[in-house]
Amino acid sequence: MRKIEVVQGILDANDATAEGNRATFDANGCLAVNIMASPGAGKTSFILRTIEGLSRDTRIAVIEGDMASTVDAEKVQGAASAVVQINTKGMPESCALVADMVHVALSRLPLDQLDVVLIENVGNLLCPAEFNLGEHLRIVVSSTPEGDDKPIKYPLIFADADAVVINKSDLLPYVDFDMDRFTQEVRNLNPRVRFFPLSCKTGEGVAEWVAWLHDQRPSG
Amino acid sequence: MRKIEVVQGILDANDATAEGNRATFDANGCLAVNIMASPGAGKTSFILRTIEGLSRDTRIAVIEGDMASTVDAEKVQGAASAVVQINTKGMPESCALVADMVHVALSRLPLDQLDVVLIENVGNLLCPAEFNLGEHLRIVVSSTPEGDDKPIKYPLIFADADAVVINKSDLLPYVDFDMDRFTQEVRNLNPRVRFFPLSCKTGEGVAEWVAWLHDQRPSG
Repeated sequence: MRKIEVVQGILDANDATAEGNRATFDANGCLAVNIMASPGAGKTSFILRTIEGLSRDTRIAVIEGDMASTVDAEKVQGAASAVVQINTKGMPESCALVADMVHVALSRLPLDQLDVVLIENVGNLLCPAEFNLGEHLRIVVSSTPEGDDKPIKYPLIFADADAVVINKSDLLPYVDFDMDRFTQEVRNLNPRVRFFPLSCKTGEGVAEWVAWLHDQRPSG
Repeated sequence: MRKIEVVQGILDANDATAEGNRATFDANGCLAVNIMASPGAGKTSFILRTIEGLSRDTRIAVIEGDMASTVDAEKVQGAASAVVQINTKGMPESCALVADMVHVALSRLPLDQLDVVLIENVGNLLCPAEFNLGEHLRIVVSSTPEGDDKPIKYPLIFADADAVVINKSDLLPYVDFDMDRFTQEVRNLNPRVRFFPLSCKTGEGVAEWVAWLHDQRPSG
């Protein structure tokens, strides 16, 4: 007797599409990175620093997810090999990128000529945690002015992260942020996670992140 | 012929419950304030400053919305007349407070002994914009490290706000935030909005906000 597959609601359907995206990335030897953060944590500056760090021997595309506007796509346009903007406003699930949106974006990208696809999710620590896009790596960008209690209040997104970037380290003298408390709270949820404290403004700490990401590519 | 009411999906059902909440607030002479912001913009510190500023002649309760934890409720417990924590984790709509959750919280509050109910929404600039809770005032708390482009990227939440608080004014010397650009972008979406730049850390600007809020009470 053949097994009957039942698609149970939106998250199962999303997982099926995500699996297809993942197969497409793999077939093209592309590393796909889902970058998630609060509004204003510095995702776009982080993407620009990442492209700058990797780009000598790496061809990079960016998929920009925003509720509205193309401001982020315009910022990365000059740096990346290719950019696709997704505006989620008015879509049935407007609170995060979903696998279907990424599936459409992939059809607009020259995947066989790319090594890395950076996916900038919408600014939100809640909904993006629920939607698999077919990525290989899930990165959370936190920032020091947001405070060190975010892992306690938004546990899901930290529990599934491969790496947590702690941006705006240059503001540490001016804000209340206990680095040890923050990293310990994340480790309680996710013992295998990697941390990268850095400043996209000054560039401090970016090299360590870029070196690690470079090593995650299928080719090493 | 009687009109047949059709509840069209989740947002209509939410509006109906919100209307009930509003009637309950009004019957008790309570001003209800929905406070929305990114994670880490400083909602809880803002609530503490607001209670401190108002409390001489105002009885205040707080409804705390968080995906998980009671850290915010613990912070305000000593200051407010009453506190109810709502944890949205595992609820069907986990990305924002919805009117049903507030309806349940209201049953736990001594409304006839209160003047103001402050509702701290979950940290999110997207989903809270979609859900009316029955509040009288919608307040967005932005913060200077988030950057001045948030109104362009999250227009819905700014378009419906009665007031926009610009928190962390003490960090202005250390971050790239153009106050004129920010306020102009918000005014493009919402010409009638009020702005309150302030610092919950130093207290600068808090008095102006508190005076305005005091005037919004039904008793004046």
